[in-house]
Amino acid sequence: MYTKALLTDLYQLTMMQGLFFEGKHEQQCVFDRYYRTNPFQGGYTVVAGLEHLIDYVHNIHFSEDDLAYLKSTGFFQDEFLEYLKDLRFTGDIYAMPEGTVAFPQEVLLRVQTKKDEALLLETCMSMIMNHESLIATKARRVRTVAGKDNLMEFGLRRAQGKSAGVYGARSAMIGGFNGTSNVLAGAKFGMPVLGTMAHSWIMSFSSELEAFRAYARQYPNNLILLADTYNTLKQGVPDAITIFKEMKAAGTLPKAYGIRLDSGDLAYLSKEAHKMFAEAGFPDAIIAASNDLDENLISELKAQGCVINSWGVGTNLITAKDSPSLGGVFKLVGQYDDGKFVPKIKMSDNVEKISNPGLKNVLRIYDKETGKMKADIIILEGESIDESKDLLLQSDKAPWRSRTIPGGTYRVQKMLIPIFQKGELVYQKPDLKEIMAYADQQIQTLWPEYLRLVNPEEMWVQRSTKLSALRDKVLKEESAHFF
Amino acid sequence: MYTKALLTDLYQLTMMQGLFFEGKHEQQCVFDRYYRTNPFQGGYTVVAGLEHLIDYVHNIHFSEDDLAYLKSTGFFQDEFLEYLKDLRFTGDIYAMPEGTVAFPQEVLLRVQTKKDEALLLETCMSMIMNHESLIATKARRVRTVAGKDNLMEFGLRRAQGKSAGVYGARSAMIGGFNGTSNVLAGAKFGMPVLGTMAHSWIMSFSSELEAFRAYARQYPNNLILLADTYNTLKQGVPDAITIFKEMKAAGTLPKAYGIRLDSGDLAYLSKEAHKMFAEAGFPDAIIAASNDLDENLISELKAQGCVINSWGVGTNLITAKDSPSLGGVFKLVGQYDDGKFVPKIKMSDNVEKISNPGLKNVLRIYDKETGKMKADIIILEGESIDESKDLLLQSDKAPWRSRTIPGGTYRVQKMLIPIFQKGELVYQKPDLKEIMAYADQQIQTLWPEYLRLVNPEEMWVQRSTKLSALRDKVLKEESAHFF
Repeated sequence: MYTKALLTDLYQLTMMQGLFFEGKHEQQCVFDRYYRTNPFQGGYTVVAGLEHLIDYVHNIHFSEDDLAYLKSTGFFQDEFLEYLKDLRFTGDIYAMPEGTVAFPQEVLLRVQTKKDEALLLETCMSMIMNHESLIATKARRVRTVAGKDNLMEFGLRRAQGKSAGVYGARSAMIGGFNGTSNVLAGAKFGMPVLGTMAHSWIMSFSSELEAFRAYARQYPNNLILLADTYNTLKQGVPDAITIFKEMKAAGTLPKAYGIRLDSGDLAYLSKEAHKMFAEAGFPDAIIAASNDLDENLISELKAQGCVINSWGVGTNLITAKDSPSLGGVFKLVGQYDDGKFVPKIKMSDNVEKISNPGLKNVLRIYDKETGKMKADIIILEGESIDESKDLLLQSDKAPWRSRTIPGGTYRVQKMLIPIFQKGELVYQKPDLKEIMAYADQQIQTLWPEYLRLVNPEEMWVQRSTKLSALRDKVLKEESAHFF
Repeated sequence: MYTKALLTDLYQLTMMQGLFFEGKHEQQCVFDRYYRTNPFQGGYTVVAGLEHLIDYVHNIHFSEDDLAYLKSTGFFQDEFLEYLKDLRFTGDIYAMPEGTVAFPQEVLLRVQTKKDEALLLETCMSMIMNHESLIATKARRVRTVAGKDNLMEFGLRRAQGKSAGVYGARSAMIGGFNGTSNVLAGAKFGMPVLGTMAHSWIMSFSSELEAFRAYARQYPNNLILLADTYNTLKQGVPDAITIFKEMKAAGTLPKAYGIRLDSGDLAYLSKEAHKMFAEAGFPDAIIAASNDLDENLISELKAQGCVINSWGVGTNLITAKDSPSLGGVFKLVGQYDDGKFVPKIKMSDNVEKISNPGLKNVLRIYDKETGKMKADIIILEGESIDESKDLLLQSDKAPWRSRTIPGGTYRVQKMLIPIFQKGELVYQKPDLKEIMAYADQQIQTLWPEYLRLVNPEEMWVQRSTKLSALRDKVLKEESAHFF
């Protein structure tokens, strides 16, 4: 049986072996995970994937089959394979909890460990966090426009594989969805599963009315009838009204009942259907909609006065269609040479791409009165801010835009918390409900300007003075390489 | 342990139970899988995913845990769960083999079985085929512009989950790639795995030259040096030349050696680097490139005279970034009512969306002399074409564009072949190498006009006269529902 230890790029393993034979594999080092641009041209990212990551890191080891395969490739020597046999994660990981809103350049996760362990984890760790944060962010955008409507994740059949479907469904919940059609995700993560019928159900009966009647017979309490198989307004809605009347007469009409529209103009059809339901005495019939929805279309449909209070979102969510990858990176920011910590940066001709060196954390500044977030400050681990004193915000990107927050009006929160220490899991994993509540609360800390779908306000993120000074120093040293 | 039987939408299971209690679950029916639009605005799709699908269908069953979970949802009754316990796939599946080029509206896969089994399979089957065909198609587009260059799949860290990475890497091979960095995919499918070093290797040594020297010491036969950490032309290429000279002097320079560029202007840098290598006596040094590549960028770089003969393609391939889902659908096209086969169509206000009814196959017409494909004809199963007779091509979409192919100049191939019969696997699964050879050969049957990245020629796909007649008849009967 192959394990996830092989779920990596070959070069991580060849570098590990190279360092092993060069005697450098056990060098302690620090890697940061961060990203450079918000996905979907939005104002934030919702962190997700930590639970999955913990599971991966906690269990990582090479099986006999893994090692036999590696040997068969011809790249690896027995001495190194023997070493891999007992390799486990022995280091520290600090991370922002799932549901946290985050911003470009911030440290989302920090790994301090032997270099070969960091290399081993990089690819899969990046993949998990990139994927799940991306989908949680997309889902949160949908939630932002959907208000208190019901949101259902329907994307499995168009997902990029099983894990995309299953972990995507979980990420959608962190982004504020109410449930999923994905049964395996429901089972695995204890999430609500939802769904009623497809067109093939309707086509299995001699008429739509018969199909509805049979469905009402089988599921009197899960009564969302698919109303667009033949003609929504001429047939689907009248057939649904017939069923609702029959059930009302029999005293079996459930509290929640309604229809689903899966084609046609959802604004027009929902308004007309609602009118017909209201006239027939069913003004509270749910109108659910699906069909290529995303946050932009839902926002427009609402602007056009649609009467829809339940949305099934599929392909565009589960593939993050308009921005299907999050460019999170994992960079070496420091290592111990002869016991001394040496901060590192990755140079680049593109100044924006130069990383922040050193062992860092992120301090978040909240306004005490409103509870809203004011700024994030990337600091060197150990730096603190005295909440009673005035705080000068001044970024080196635009130093003239400085502002002062009066002492006593703000509170400070440290965003990276310990997950693993010396290889031991020290983090008490919250359950999904707790994560969802925290994610909702995190979003509440942002003014609506930061949540706008298009051209949102940019969150204030700056380096501390100490970090800026360190960065300048390392930059100067590293540029010696160029001459 | 949960199984893939739960990897489905809840409504499939609620419909199955509904049909069960309505006594309709064992009705024999036929479902077609097809898609309506080529992805990437291209001219074709490469079929992939069949091996994965076979594995899924072959093993599908509900475990005790699956059933306990379903019970816990409150949607399901014991009698039905008892029935699920012994449910296995008992029907027939016909499909186009992996590597086949296919076109919109064509039947790619046909399932004939009990209705509840078809419902059970729909979601996961669609997901597998949608995902893997999408990536194979994207990869083929890259191969089309890359000529005989080496193509490496590098996308794992940005993949949408583990399966996206692993099955995506396999699909890339079907699309014509040479290998992957994904070790687990290599192990699982016996594919070549590739890779050398990342920037963190360079940064683990006191200088780039030391890092190169250490690498050459460890991997004298896998010598692609990452040359852009500090400054490609002022340092990376000169350092590489130093190493190549040292190895040449020591007689250890391998046959294949070179550098990789991962940033900067790849056209300019590769031309300059090639010049420097040539002047130093290494004109055959490989120049590999990576960094946000796709078929469009590679095509442009080639037009600008880049000297790159090995490409690492990551994010844009593994997520199919510009078109991250294939809209394959699965529609009921017929069922047996009282032992009589009744063809079905899904009506739609959008005429293009109306499906083709009945039990069908696809006949492909090849020109005998050139071996090139001339047309596909969607037929009713059992129809045949006499190759000695003239063949009139006339689509009902544009009947005035008819043309005649003289008898004796063409050959006919049936495209859907049996995979399962009565639940038994009857298909001899080819290995990946055979699939890749077939996929290459399939692409050879298309004139370059059909392979163009942008605005390609549209393949001639038509219904047979008999199928057209049946469609008209069913359409007329179904429209009775509307009045």
